Amino acid sequence: MSPAQPILSTMPRVEIGRLVAQIEELAAINRQADGSCARIALSNADRQGRELLVRWMKDAGLSVSIDPIGNVIGVSAGKAAVPPLMIGSHIDTVATGGRYDGAYGVLAGLEVVRAFRDAGVIPDRPIAVAAFTNEEGVRYQPDMMGSMVFAGSLSLEEAYATRGTDGSILKDELERIGFVGAAPLGEPRPAAYLELHIEQGPILDRTGGTLGAVADLQGISWQRVTVRGQSNHAGTTPMEMRRDAALTAARVIVFVEALCGQLGRGQVATVGQITLTPNLVNVVPGSACFTVDLRNADEATLARSEAALVDFLEQACRADGTEFEIQSLVRTSPVRFDQRIVEAIEQAAGELGHDIIRMTSGAGHDAQMMATICPSAMIFVPSIDGLSHNPAELTDPKHLEAGCETLLRVVMQLSAII
Amino acid sequence: MSPAQPILSTMPRVEIGRLVAQIEELAAINRQADGSCARIALSNADRQGRELLVRWMKDAGLSVSIDPIGNVIGVSAGKAAVPPLMIGSHIDTVATGGRYDGAYGVLAGLEVVRAFRDAGVIPDRPIAVAAFTNEEGVRYQPDMMGSMVFAGSLSLEEAYATRGTDGSILKDELERIGFVGAAPLGEPRPAAYLELHIEQGPILDRTGGTLGAVADLQGISWQRVTVRGQSNHAGTTPMEMRRDAALTAARVIVFVEALCGQLGRGQVATVGQITLTPNLVNVVPGSACFTVDLRNADEATLARSEAALVDFLEQACRADGTEFEIQSLVRTSPVRFDQRIVEAIEQAAGELGHDIIRMTSGAGHDAQMMATICPSAMIFVPSIDGLSHNPAELTDPKHLEAGCETLLRVVMQLSAII
Repeated sequence: MSPAQPILSTMPRVEIGRLVAQIEELAAINRQADGSCARIALSNADRQGRELLVRWMKDAGLSVSIDPIGNVIGVSAGKAAVPPLMIGSHIDTVATGGRYDGAYGVLAGLEVVRAFRDAGVIPDRPIAVAAFTNEEGVRYQPDMMGSMVFAGSLSLEEAYATRGTDGSILKDELERIGFVGAAPLGEPRPAAYLELHIEQGPILDRTGGTLGAVADLQGISWQRVTVRGQSNHAGTTPMEMRRDAALTAARVIVFVEALCGQLGRGQVATVGQITLTPNLVNVVPGSACFTVDLRNADEATLARSEAALVDFLEQACRADGTEFEIQSLVRTSPVRFDQRIVEAIEQAAGELGHDIIRMTSGAGHDAQMMATICPSAMIFVPSIDGLSHNPAELTDPKHLEAGCETLLRVVMQLSAII
Repeated sequence: MSPAQPILSTMPRVEIGRLVAQIEELAAINRQADGSCARIALSNADRQGRELLVRWMKDAGLSVSIDPIGNVIGVSAGKAAVPPLMIGSHIDTVATGGRYDGAYGVLAGLEVVRAFRDAGVIPDRPIAVAAFTNEEGVRYQPDMMGSMVFAGSLSLEEAYATRGTDGSILKDELERIGFVGAAPLGEPRPAAYLELHIEQGPILDRTGGTLGAVADLQGISWQRVTVRGQSNHAGTTPMEMRRDAALTAARVIVFVEALCGQLGRGQVATVGQITLTPNLVNVVPGSACFTVDLRNADEATLARSEAALVDFLEQACRADGTEFEIQSLVRTSPVRFDQRIVEAIEQAAGELGHDIIRMTSGAGHDAQMMATICPSAMIFVPSIDGLSHNPAELTDPKHLEAGCETLLRVVMQLSAII
């Protein structure tokens, strides 16, 4: 599809074959037998991926810097020496990751740079392509760590001291792989931030493969609920004498699903984890420990769902003779992206003939950290069957292309807005 | 409380101090730091318990025999050489057992024999005291094995070949502890069978400590249900696109509790065990595997509860976009004890001034096996807080005494009935 030699023109164009080839080459590092990618943050595989990326950035003519948290940032010159437009994401993966999650956004940024260069066009603003450290948070928590430190929401010292699930200290591992850089943290401070990403959900795929202009991102509220009742013999204890912790837990699961229907407005709720004690076929559960994951892009509705959960727990425990404790594990506020950029994304996609819908991100992304320091927004492409964090993660190449050329067009038009 | 020398009288009387002292001495074998008894079937501790019991039986003047499955049976002479009245239970325990479960019934049988002897009274029929092998079924399944083999419901060969949870073969261990006996299996065939046992449930304790005349025993239906949906991201998957296996499981838990209220008639239902996959806070569960324990002393109602479960699963899975499999793990029929003996128990307790209620056993007992070969019934005494299989298992000594003297009186009166 793409000519061997780039054709010089005044109109930068995306070469999808070149982008896909880089995605595949990055995915081949430490590829597992089941096809999954395992470039866990600060592992040897992550180092290999970083080194490949740095080489590709230099090949594309970028000036590459590494900051103290290991964020890799390549900058191309613009017509004016003004703050750059940043295109970013991450290249670390979960233990059984797919090819596109993160990598697509970083490499599409590189493709945008190459598109300008090959067309002989210098963009109005410098373009910075960023790969943020440890977005996935598999080995070291919190996730989105590199962008969080870049945005000043987490101190470098705190990040350095993080102990991994394998007992390692983050700074030791960052040094070991050679990615403690000397570039000033938080620089270059971007004029705006764009992130292109697979949806990691089913909406765009179900609508037949449109693009998504991501207008906001859900706030997340995770709680751990422990219900305590009384362990009893399943045969000898009459129903009316039971204090069954699993029954209360089950009522909560049924309730939160119904609550989402009542609240509407994109409210979602998930009970993904449950542990009964003693977890025996013939013993009435004495305790049930479970998580509740509540999300909404609207803060007021999210807070309403949290209050409704507590109200229901009080009522259900009273009915069942049980007691509960609730502990907040994670609480993030919803993020509203820059609406001018969202509209620019919609307009660019429309001009290119792509269907696009305005949507909410249900997953966390580096863009939510960047949104705290500059106007930001995201573009989503469909994930087949909504799969992600899975070797079966797949996006049709024509959607990869549509996403990348929309990104390029937004970059070309954005200097008129920002 | 008890005189050093038994007083001869024409009225046999229980000496509770002697019975309690034996219960405590047996409980002291391999007692754990938390106070629990751990005489697991065919362990060294079980051997010690058996050897102590054989000695006590001989001390009480019983003629002791061991059968090929290791059941220990001591027989005292009666006025006539007719089939004996058997009093039995077991002396093996679970890993964290209490003092009374099983041991109380066997040692109360011995106390009844001693009461006759000390009073210089020869009972109308011979009395056999039996301790059945492996009632608990902790190490070797099925439980109630010794009485099951005695009653001819399980072959000796099958029992011998049982592989334990520790990999051992039952016959090897039975030989190792020296309890493969030569007495003919199933002999002496009793004219009737009585078992005195702690309730292991809360009913008698809640009613203020009456006795229980056990009229029947619940049939048990255990199933394993696997619900399959689709694992999905908890943030990016809209509620209406989910196929949440935990939601279906939760609906079933809420349903079976309500079903018991509708069916009444002593129906109980327990979901004691559940495993979600992948069991992560931020992933919609793709599968939920759980057990349902249904019990009722009425076969028709039990069967109705099983059918209602399947009907509900079909309906819930249709609503949730999930699928289910259901597998029967255990199914036993309810047992109806001999109503003449049940009435004799009520009458004897009444004559002694003890409150007694007719009740259903919610736990399995050797009596249910014996009921297949002779008229049988059980007497229950209260368990404080309904606790059992627990070091905190406790029965007030006055209830231990009330149970044992009721047993003695039934034995004295039973020859008029059986």
